[in-house]
Amino acid sequence: MKFIRDSVHGNLQLDEFEISLVDTPQVQRLRRIKQLGFTYLVYPGANHSRFEHSIGSMYLASRLAEILNLNDHTKKMLRACAILHDIGHGPFSHVSEGVMDTSHEDFTSQIIKESQLIDILSEIFDPHEIINIIRGRGALGQIISGEIDVDRMDYLLRDSYYTGVAYGVIDVERLIYNMKLEDNLLLDNKGVQAAESTLVARYFMYPSVYQHHTTRIINSMFRRCLRKLFERGIILPEEIYQYDDIDIMAIIRSQDGDIKDLNQRIEDRELFKTVLSLKLDDLDNPESIFKIKEENIIRAESEISEALDIPADYVIIDIPEYPSFDEMRTLVSVDDRVVKLSEISSIVGALQDARFNHADLCIYVPEEHAKKTSGFSFLDFIDLPD
Amino acid sequence: MKFIRDSVHGNLQLDEFEISLVDTPQVQRLRRIKQLGFTYLVYPGANHSRFEHSIGSMYLASRLAEILNLNDHTKKMLRACAILHDIGHGPFSHVSEGVMDTSHEDFTSQIIKESQLIDILSEIFDPHEIINIIRGRGALGQIISGEIDVDRMDYLLRDSYYTGVAYGVIDVERLIYNMKLEDNLLLDNKGVQAAESTLVARYFMYPSVYQHHTTRIINSMFRRCLRKLFERGIILPEEIYQYDDIDIMAIIRSQDGDIKDLNQRIEDRELFKTVLSLKLDDLDNPESIFKIKEENIIRAESEISEALDIPADYVIIDIPEYPSFDEMRTLVSVDDRVVKLSEISSIVGALQDARFNHADLCIYVPEEHAKKTSGFSFLDFIDLPD
Amino acid sequence: MKFIRDSVHGNLQLDEFEISLVDTPQVQRLRRIKQLGFTYLVYPGANHSRFEHSIGSMYLASRLAEILNLNDHTKKMLRACAILHDIGHGPFSHVSEGVMDTSHEDFTSQIIKESQLIDILSEIFDPHEIINIIRGRGALGQIISGEIDVDRMDYLLRDSYYTGVAYGVIDVERLIYNMKLEDNLLLDNKGVQAAESTLVARYFMYPSVYQHHTTRIINSMFRRCLRKLFERGIILPEEIYQYDDIDIMAIIRSQDGDIKDLNQRIEDRELFKTVLSLKLDDLDNPESIFKIKEENIIRAESEISEALDIPADYVIIDIPEYPSFDEMRTLVSVDDRVVKLSEISSIVGALQDARFNHADLCIYVPEEHAKKTSGFSFLDFIDLPD
Amino acid sequence: MKFIRDSVHGNLQLDEFEISLVDTPQVQRLRRIKQLGFTYLVYPGANHSRFEHSIGSMYLASRLAEILNLNDHTKKMLRACAILHDIGHGPFSHVSEGVMDTSHEDFTSQIIKESQLIDILSEIFDPHEIINIIRGRGALGQIISGEIDVDRMDYLLRDSYYTGVAYGVIDVERLIYNMKLEDNLLLDNKGVQAAESTLVARYFMYPSVYQHHTTRIINSMFRRCLRKLFERGIILPEEIYQYDDIDIMAIIRSQDGDIKDLNQRIEDRELFKTVLSLKLDDLDNPESIFKIKEENIIRAESEISEALDIPADYVIIDIPEYPSFDEMRTLVSVDDRVVKLSEISSIVGALQDARFNHADLCIYVPEEHAKKTSGFSFLDFIDLPD
Repeated sequence: MKFIRDSVHGNLQLDEFEISLVDTPQVQRLRRIKQLGFTYLVYPGANHSRFEHSIGSMYLASRLAEILNLNDHTKKMLRACAILHDIGHGPFSHVSEGVMDTSHEDFTSQIIKESQLIDILSEIFDPHEIINIIRGRGALGQIISGEIDVDRMDYLLRDSYYTGVAYGVIDVERLIYNMKLEDNLLLDNKGVQAAESTLVARYFMYPSVYQHHTTRIINSMFRRCLRKLFERGIILPEEIYQYDDIDIMAIIRSQDGDIKDLNQRIEDRELFKTVLSLKLDDLDNPESIFKIKEENIIRAESEISEALDIPADYVIIDIPEYPSFDEMRTLVSVDDRVVKLSEISSIVGALQDARFNHADLCIYVPEEHAKKTSGFSFLDFIDLPD
Repeated sequence: MKFIRDSVHGNLQLDEFEISLVDTPQVQRLRRIKQLGFTYLVYPGANHSRFEHSIGSMYLASRLAEILNLNDHTKKMLRACAILHDIGHGPFSHVSEGVMDTSHEDFTSQIIKESQLIDILSEIFDPHEIINIIRGRGALGQIISGEIDVDRMDYLLRDSYYTGVAYGVIDVERLIYNMKLEDNLLLDNKGVQAAESTLVARYFMYPSVYQHHTTRIINSMFRRCLRKLFERGIILPEEIYQYDDIDIMAIIRSQDGDIKDLNQRIEDRELFKTVLSLKLDDLDNPESIFKIKEENIIRAESEISEALDIPADYVIIDIPEYPSFDEMRTLVSVDDRVVKLSEISSIVGALQDARFNHADLCIYVPEEHAKKTSGFSFLDFIDLPD
Repeated sequence: MKFIRDSVHGNLQLDEFEISLVDTPQVQRLRRIKQLGFTYLVYPGANHSRFEHSIGSMYLASRLAEILNLNDHTKKMLRACAILHDIGHGPFSHVSEGVMDTSHEDFTSQIIKESQLIDILSEIFDPHEIINIIRGRGALGQIISGEIDVDRMDYLLRDSYYTGVAYGVIDVERLIYNMKLEDNLLLDNKGVQAAESTLVARYFMYPSVYQHHTTRIINSMFRRCLRKLFERGIILPEEIYQYDDIDIMAIIRSQDGDIKDLNQRIEDRELFKTVLSLKLDDLDNPESIFKIKEENIIRAESEISEALDIPADYVIIDIPEYPSFDEMRTLVSVDDRVVKLSEISSIVGALQDARFNHADLCIYVPEEHAKKTSGFSFLDFIDLPD
Repeated sequence: MKFIRDSVHGNLQLDEFEISLVDTPQVQRLRRIKQLGFTYLVYPGANHSRFEHSIGSMYLASRLAEILNLNDHTKKMLRACAILHDIGHGPFSHVSEGVMDTSHEDFTSQIIKESQLIDILSEIFDPHEIINIIRGRGALGQIISGEIDVDRMDYLLRDSYYTGVAYGVIDVERLIYNMKLEDNLLLDNKGVQAAESTLVARYFMYPSVYQHHTTRIINSMFRRCLRKLFERGIILPEEIYQYDDIDIMAIIRSQDGDIKDLNQRIEDRELFKTVLSLKLDDLDNPESIFKIKEENIIRAESEISEALDIPADYVIIDIPEYPSFDEMRTLVSVDDRVVKLSEISSIVGALQDARFNHADLCIYVPEEHAKKTSGFSFLDFIDLPD
């Protein structure tokens, strides 16, 4: 038995098997992946790592397993899943994922299969069951990756703790004490308010933290660097999960030209300026934004930079993250029926519309070129699908 | 006006001048220097940076300035000092400082003088006054770097917050509300208990966090890497303050041979094992340990490695940090007299002895060589001064 | 200068004038008035008093006054208002107010005028200005009693702290840093999210705490006792503000008959049972519920008790508290316009409907009579206005 | 199953048997007994009740039982003991106990035997075993009432939470994770620091909270009222455990003469003044203070009041609470030996002396008589035993 002190959940206990998982390079690497990417440049406390989030999720998984009266083997399996669920994340977590075609879940499956992890897991479990759970399949999968899962509970609490933004403080106890496992993971009617409040928490964290305007600019600039590293063959996209934050920063710092320049602007806080902010709820069809093809964006960026005489690749069109709010689909058990949370909660219904409030399509250019854009008709260059 | 959200103290306000200080590369670099070095490998939440600590100290400096009824100019000067007081730290803070001949305070002075900081400061202040305060000179200096200063208050609170170890929670309010500034910074008698408790907090943080056994091993291994980088001219010691954590890790990862091997062991958690732990309070003269000359340690390491047939430089003798507990000398105003805290507090008197309880001189070797050391008389190789 | 240690806001400083206010019997009495009435029977930590809430409001009033750049005199006046704003509360706060024709604000004005408070206040202020501010009149009044006032900010935080229900944790700092005082107290656009989240906090606290089902039953039973004390002339309603929680409990315990019996049931936790719960959002016109005249309720209770052969006064019809959510009308400054929060926030718009979700009209009877009510048509006895 | 939300420990689960215990009038009465007596007049948040402390102790008892691998029956028994351990407390807890010859532990045993509690307990347990455990007998008894027991852990945390004084924040997790049950409850060597810190916490809470100077004056004045109620036969000392805080206050308020006057002074904050403070560590034999016989104190009070022409009973000699710090005797398992904490910890050794630092014998008189005492030789009237 070993204890790890977590600043959010307190003393967490791990057995020998779990330590053997944690001590693999694949899990240790998460110590050097920031949970919230470059958010630390806006909220200076947001230096927390995927590692502590994974251990925290492990803890919540076993708390929930106890409430659900799962047997020891299943509980142990869920704990292993939580430890491993994020090993496929690239440097700076979602920041690098934003330029990848492969999701971090796919990388996670691949890493488990190709590393010593499959051997460690096979001693006790069927590794394919582990992978399925991590992918959110089956009723157990909903505990790790579902509508209201331990991953989300942990990150809301943790991101609040480290950013100092109270919006993410949710009532984890009321949530898990009101769950039951049937064909699906169900929430009892008594827990509806706790689920509503979790959804609201995320709704408020969205503009304050996850899609903070400054962070979005930095992420966009960094992703541009990353894309160039891919294009120039310096990093292979399919190997991104082998790098940690340090590796990527070291490579970027060692480059010349535009990559060096973009990174230097980030480090010196000479950030690009926003020259267009198109609110999604001003659009007839906000969803259309998310259907714009990448090639069209690249073409539009190129045409705009030419029209405005800005160096190629120094115009960035930034599509916001899709505000999906899966919690709306949480299954709630009311009397004898099972319904979706959105069907019985008026506040959740309201959020379904409100979620586009804060989202906007933005265009960024270097400060020294910002003046030129005054009166420029950016929208003529962007094809919005119907 | 700008706000920075600090997870420990809440919303902190900065004026334009302060932002111009904060936005210099010298201060921004602190975002990438971990406050507690490698402690994050033991307490996974301990990823906090020197940057947030500096902003937090700035906040406490102005709280204290208000209590002391200092004028706006002096308050602003103290805030500037707090922002800058740690810019001389090398990578991983005290870890790199442990192999340097120059203190981080000296580097701080040098950086201020040689960078644009001197110009920014000169607009409003006499930069030499700033440097003197940062160096702890004069009554104002005691606010920034004295027996009970804002630096220490902030780091105790902050290190507790991020490690999850409650020992460091101190009563900052009672401390600062009981201070007054005469020829020296004095603590009113009513604040004695708060000062005692701060001292006790640090006494408990010492073995739990600051001198945690595992952290000491990792620090020793990392310092060995660093010393080799100096010896081989890859890094110039006098330029260490130009590097951040990422730079150093990138350089170390790019090396071959022993440096690569030592770092790989850290990253894979194959840490050296402790083969000797000599408790200081078992010694007649515990202070003697701190007088051993570095050349003697290096010679002893070399002789032991030869005697045990362990590769050169793979035997590490680790002298613990000297438990100085300067808080003991805090000046307390009792009626008409000014006395040292240690003179009027029996618990502080007790700690004066107890502080050697937890300190030990350790010897570490790679796990694969640990067996050989059984029964080996390490102490024959170490000359303890009288 | 004196310090009071508040568990929510830390060390709070009071000057001599403020201590002279606090030390009056009128303010000291608040130490013995529970902020949340009988909520402590549901949340055992909810024993906090109106006294600490008043001091906490004083603190927030001066924080806000500083942000608004008000002069020292005005700040001091607002602090005095906050200290006094609740002295008109009767025993168990809103519980006794529920059976009164006079609001606690009216009593507060009366007490100030008739006690030594008017003399103390007159030394520095115009007492009528104080009373006006406490009554929410004028721009300054909105700081103490408006849409988003310091009263509300303090009680949300405080009620969360003592009940252990996290829903009430609001971002006070972001709220007050975004306020400005023009003809009205305005919220800057940047603070909209903090205001939305305050509204949501109260929306969630409503069913969890303020209108918790069990608390409503106890309140109803206690109010019945109180009404009987009035009817029998044991207490004069117009003197209710002279009693504290202890006085009322002592009087009730000393009674015989129905009052004794009702109270005994509360103390032994043999609470009335709910035999009807009529959800307001199942009604075509939920607002109509709040227009039912008291005489009609009394008549309906009497007719029901007769029809069911239950002792007179042992049938209780409980109209829920009107969920007014004044925060919706918070004035927000957007560019050059001033608009109501509800006009620019979709989540607030949503809450306008959702607020009737949790409200229900209830009927309670003693457990031993509950069976008889099965199939009984309660609604035939209640006249709902159109 | 039922949940109680505790503001300190979160959602606490109780089964049907436990609810049947909790719902007895004997346990419900604890809701109306303040944990810290009149401390709420100094720290306005300190309104917490013995009830929540009992439920909190129940929670810690089961956490500890799980760590100790006790079986379900024993765990349930310990939970029942924790729920009941304080039912013998009189009004305002230790305040009334201070004038009693019977300890609250004795009353607890008596109440269990004479109430329905013995029947409820007998269904599952041997009630005498319960009583023995509550009295601290046997190894299990040390969990409930020993050197470092769950009672103490809970109250330190809880008193900190409600007073806002951080000194009492202890590392409960490190304590209980390092305990083992052999012939005695033992602390593993690894937990020594957590135990030291608990002792230090209590040492600091002593002058700040438990023996706060103002609280001691109020307690003394109130105890004088109580003693008069006993003397006049208004309350029988042996029935004190039947009263709650409200009862006693109601009786005192209904009295005339000196009792009314003393209480009025408390409620109007016209407290007695301290005219002598004799520091115990200025005495050759501090322990002697605690051997002064009560009859001698009463005689001295009487002689002093006569000599100074102060009304009888208006001179109060207040012996401080004996600072016993039982934690010093905590049994620690070091290698193969079992030793007392004080033997292996230098800081604990130090506290053994330091604990008399803050203790003083005080004499209080009404403010209007304080002047007369100038230069008066109080000590001539007090016989200090050798």
